[in-house]
Amino acid sequence: MRHHWTLVTDLGRFRPGSVSLVGAGPGAPDLLTRRAALRLAEADLVLYDALVDPAALALAPSAQRIFVGKRAGRPAVRQSFINRLMIRAATRGRRVVRLKGGDPFVFGRGGEESLALAAAGVPFEVVPGVSAATAAATLAGIPVTHRGVSSAFVVVSGHAAAAYRPILESLAPHSATLVVLMGLAQIEPLAALLVDRGWNPLTPVAALLGASTAESELWMTTLGNPHIPESARGGAPGTIVIGDVVRLRVATIQGLVPLVAAG
Amino acid sequence: MRHHWTLVTDLGRFRPGSVSLVGAGPGAPDLLTRRAALRLAEADLVLYDALVDPAALALAPSAQRIFVGKRAGRPAVRQSFINRLMIRAATRGRRVVRLKGGDPFVFGRGGEESLALAAAGVPFEVVPGVSAATAAATLAGIPVTHRGVSSAFVVVSGHAAAAYRPILESLAPHSATLVVLMGLAQIEPLAALLVDRGWNPLTPVAALLGASTAESELWMTTLGNPHIPESARGGAPGTIVIGDVVRLRVATIQGLVPLVAAG
Repeated sequence: MRHHWTLVTDLGRFRPGSVSLVGAGPGAPDLLTRRAALRLAEADLVLYDALVDPAALALAPSAQRIFVGKRAGRPAVRQSFINRLMIRAATRGRRVVRLKGGDPFVFGRGGEESLALAAAGVPFEVVPGVSAATAAATLAGIPVTHRGVSSAFVVVSGHAAAAYRPILESLAPHSATLVVLMGLAQIEPLAALLVDRGWNPLTPVAALLGASTAESELWMTTLGNPHIPESARGGAPGTIVIGDVVRLRVATIQGLVPLVAAG
Repeated sequence: MRHHWTLVTDLGRFRPGSVSLVGAGPGAPDLLTRRAALRLAEADLVLYDALVDPAALALAPSAQRIFVGKRAGRPAVRQSFINRLMIRAATRGRRVVRLKGGDPFVFGRGGEESLALAAAGVPFEVVPGVSAATAAATLAGIPVTHRGVSSAFVVVSGHAAAAYRPILESLAPHSATLVVLMGLAQIEPLAALLVDRGWNPLTPVAALLGASTAESELWMTTLGNPHIPESARGGAPGTIVIGDVVRLRVATIQGLVPLVAAG
């Protein structure tokens, strides 16, 4: 199968009949890019996900807004339905923003949406966003790379063990900082796997929940003692950072301490 | 040595006597975040790097602006000098923006600057930016992760083989998408290392130069034939993306073809 991708990057003006896949960043509405704000201001229709802040939607005052995310206790909107909505609206000449948390192409199914738009002949662009893959650590005061400490990082999704096992099992211990997106539920088996592979149990671990939002919390622990209380796990999605770079933040903190993230 | 980090995240208003380490994103001035633009608007002093667009500096009309980056043929400004400049200006009550390409904490030496500010007792914040680690692929139309193709990615700097060898030598072939920042000069030995480790020589490779700028170019090749012409290497810094996800972009392109990136 061959796909021709019509990538319309930096439209300047948002053409009627096109789709902009826009990254909304980690949560705070002022961490959207200026380009994202411009697209929202010109949009006729915004399809948005669960993690998008209402203040971000307020940047699209003249647009119809449709929630297409997951809500607790409700069945998720199907991807095929979202694709059809985007294609139909664009075909009718509307300017469609598909607003996704983080970056649309980082664990965001933006690739699938792009392929659907390309197959339908709908012009589209992708507006990169600030991804939690890098921003969660930054917002927690942790440099994912630091001279003499770490010169590489690995990003996995903690959603399913089958996805992260092959890479974490092969990786030489301490050869990179690890960033685990959506990983709170898996932190115990994941930490056990790493210790089993030869990582030092004293390796520091930071878990950032609700990065950049008013509800954000930072938890600190070690690979050998990876328990995070259920109370923390219930709420916002979390990003875990594992590696010696965490010590650059943690120097004055002992043990497992909840911090209201700086704000 | 113990460091107490005064992380002032989301200041709301930019306090006199503090420093904001701001990520400028991949290049285009409209890919700065809204928070970055706010800080620049209120800054008294901006210390900026080589890759920052003049249009981004125009967002700081009332600030003194000092270039502290590397310029071809000139010795680089020393990190210790930059640190002293920031600290002295903040101590004198100025609002200082340290504007860095990408994200300050992703291969940006922002960690070193933070430690210096903390040691001097200067309040500071870090404003995350859109990093080329994720955005280069996105801007090239390549999802770094894609269901059924790749569920993890590894980011290394191609600056020095000693930094990337340990992780690339241990990594199971094809277990993740690879993103190599500043890697154009090292693409041949790096590709040879991967093929030697068992990666398929037909694995697609994309090299994006000057991501998001008017001069951006996308080059496509494979691990088995990693040559990129010198003409491409001379200019803007490049990001390399290696893995089957590149095929999602490359389907209609055969061989090594220069593309003026969509714009």
